[in-house]
Amino acid sequence: MNNVKERAKKIKLMVFDVDGVLTNGQLMFTEDGIELKAFNSLDGHGIKMLHQAGISTAIITGRTSNIVINRAKALGITYLYQGREDKKQALLELLNETSYSLEEVGYVGDDLPDLGAIRAAGLGIAVANAHWFVKENAHWKTSLPGGSGAAREICDLILDAQNKLTPLLNAYL
Amino acid sequence: MNNVKERAKKIKLMVFDVDGVLTNGQLMFTEDGIELKAFNSLDGHGIKMLHQAGISTAIITGRTSNIVINRAKALGITYLYQGREDKKQALLELLNETSYSLEEVGYVGDDLPDLGAIRAAGLGIAVANAHWFVKENAHWKTSLPGGSGAAREICDLILDAQNKLTPLLNAYL
Amino acid sequence: MNNVKERAKKIKLMVFDVDGVLTNGQLMFTEDGIELKAFNSLDGHGIKMLHQAGISTAIITGRTSNIVINRAKALGITYLYQGREDKKQALLELLNETSYSLEEVGYVGDDLPDLGAIRAAGLGIAVANAHWFVKENAHWKTSLPGGSGAAREICDLILDAQNKLTPLLNAYL
Amino acid sequence: MNNVKERAKKIKLMVFDVDGVLTNGQLMFTEDGIELKAFNSLDGHGIKMLHQAGISTAIITGRTSNIVINRAKALGITYLYQGREDKKQALLELLNETSYSLEEVGYVGDDLPDLGAIRAAGLGIAVANAHWFVKENAHWKTSLPGGSGAAREICDLILDAQNKLTPLLNAYL
Repeated sequence: MNNVKERAKKIKLMVFDVDGVLTNGQLMFTEDGIELKAFNSLDGHGIKMLHQAGISTAIITGRTSNIVINRAKALGITYLYQGREDKKQALLELLNETSYSLEEVGYVGDDLPDLGAIRAAGLGIAVANAHWFVKENAHWKTSLPGGSGAAREICDLILDAQNKLTPLLNAYL
Repeated sequence: MNNVKERAKKIKLMVFDVDGVLTNGQLMFTEDGIELKAFNSLDGHGIKMLHQAGISTAIITGRTSNIVINRAKALGITYLYQGREDKKQALLELLNETSYSLEEVGYVGDDLPDLGAIRAAGLGIAVANAHWFVKENAHWKTSLPGGSGAAREICDLILDAQNKLTPLLNAYL
Repeated sequence: MNNVKERAKKIKLMVFDVDGVLTNGQLMFTEDGIELKAFNSLDGHGIKMLHQAGISTAIITGRTSNIVINRAKALGITYLYQGREDKKQALLELLNETSYSLEEVGYVGDDLPDLGAIRAAGLGIAVANAHWFVKENAHWKTSLPGGSGAAREICDLILDAQNKLTPLLNAYL
Repeated sequence: MNNVKERAKKIKLMVFDVDGVLTNGQLMFTEDGIELKAFNSLDGHGIKMLHQAGISTAIITGRTSNIVINRAKALGITYLYQGREDKKQALLELLNETSYSLEEVGYVGDDLPDLGAIRAAGLGIAVANAHWFVKENAHWKTSLPGGSGAAREICDLILDAQNKLTPLLNAYL
């Protein structure tokens, strides 16, 4: 855990997988083929707090949906990679596009296609509902499942490690 | 708790946040950008009972949606403030608009933007699924999460503190 | 419990409330005002088994929705009363319409408007997620919440008390 | 459990029920009569891994929906039987259509109409949320409920019994 705090201290860019991480993993469809997704309001506020603290955010997801584009826009998430089965490859492209090093990047996912990115990132996180092998190979596990505040837990972890959480919280008192 | 009962005894206006309080915090969207929200039937009946007992109700929410307008109308909620990021400011405006004092107002929320209003209100409540810092700074916490009957718990608390619950319940026997 | 079995033995008509009983109590809406409801597949099969055993079923609900009409039709539920705030009054009308006595009728609900019907019925049941006062005044409580199999539990209880469950189950072996 | 591993070792075709197995059993509808279903992303990846390991998959379901057709297509599930109340009959037709024997087939379900297929299959599985009589008569029970990763647990069980899981997992490291 001490080690986790050391890793979190260096994070300048936090990358989120979508299904099972920013959502509860449900892939919901109507008979007409229209997809629905449910994000969590606590997560949204956490991501805004990361931005407030000067930490960038990105989304890398295997699927493709307008819902993710709209949500990323609403939250001010700068980098969005959709339809990317190879998450680690997308992560390396993202680092190429930005000036961040692997050590400065956090990545959270729930399934095997996330594992390469989780292990490559300076801080690799598995959500509580992740596949057991992903949890075994991550630096940290959230206590809440995806779509129920797991992303918020991560925002708190990073802000706290960088001594930015307490001043941000106290501003609300 | 005794203190909570004293606070609840004075409440004449109960104010509810929406996402994470009257809902479970899920922000659900279709690919076409249409939003969906799910309220709870137990909460609806509790709010109607508050009205029956002469206690007013209001909604203050950071987001904006027709769903909230329709739900407020269906439940007879008099005051509705949408798109208000500064909840405490909206609460003070609401008190200005009505004749209530801070001591006579209850407020329930789940996240940091609610904290100012929770601390200013005579009875400041955090739902079970609220951010930990909000729970630490509230007068009371519900045992049920938002969207699963948390608001009903609050209605019962207030009615009970004012000795109005037992007669209302017995009327159903 | 023995008493419950005695009560269940006499049931010829089982009446279900909808929101919080056949659903989990979520009242879900789109921004366009379209309502959505989610029933449970286990409950559906239980209701079909009641019919197979010659036990009638009915729905009495305070709200009004096409979804309930369609679901009742799909399951072959004979009697449907919608938009009825006074459930006990509707129950008495239903007994008038049919030849059943109160002793021969079961009723399951989750909230105070159900209480009169629960107490009048020969077998009055509260679901696990019901308001505490309803649970205190029911003959029996399900262990599963509404929308997750509570209705199926009730079907099993009635069929078992009438010695009809084991032969029905064994027919599937 | 040893016996379960022996059974799982022989499986060449895994057959999934839909409602309550690949979903959480919720039958969701809009007022306009449009149905919605929610699958789980972890299950989807598990099914793809079965295919990668040369194990075929099929769906046999009592209901009929375009959503299932689309999901089966997206996951590359070869055999799809909808609207089949008699699951065992459909299973026998499927074996007739393919070259597999009963010993080589796994079947997972949640309710009584699945029981014949569960008992006939070489590996008959009940999900955690299955009816108690189905659980009592299955060779194995998942620990997760349907729609929350139950199908993924089954994929892992089969792959592990055939010594194919570890190499597949390690490929992600």
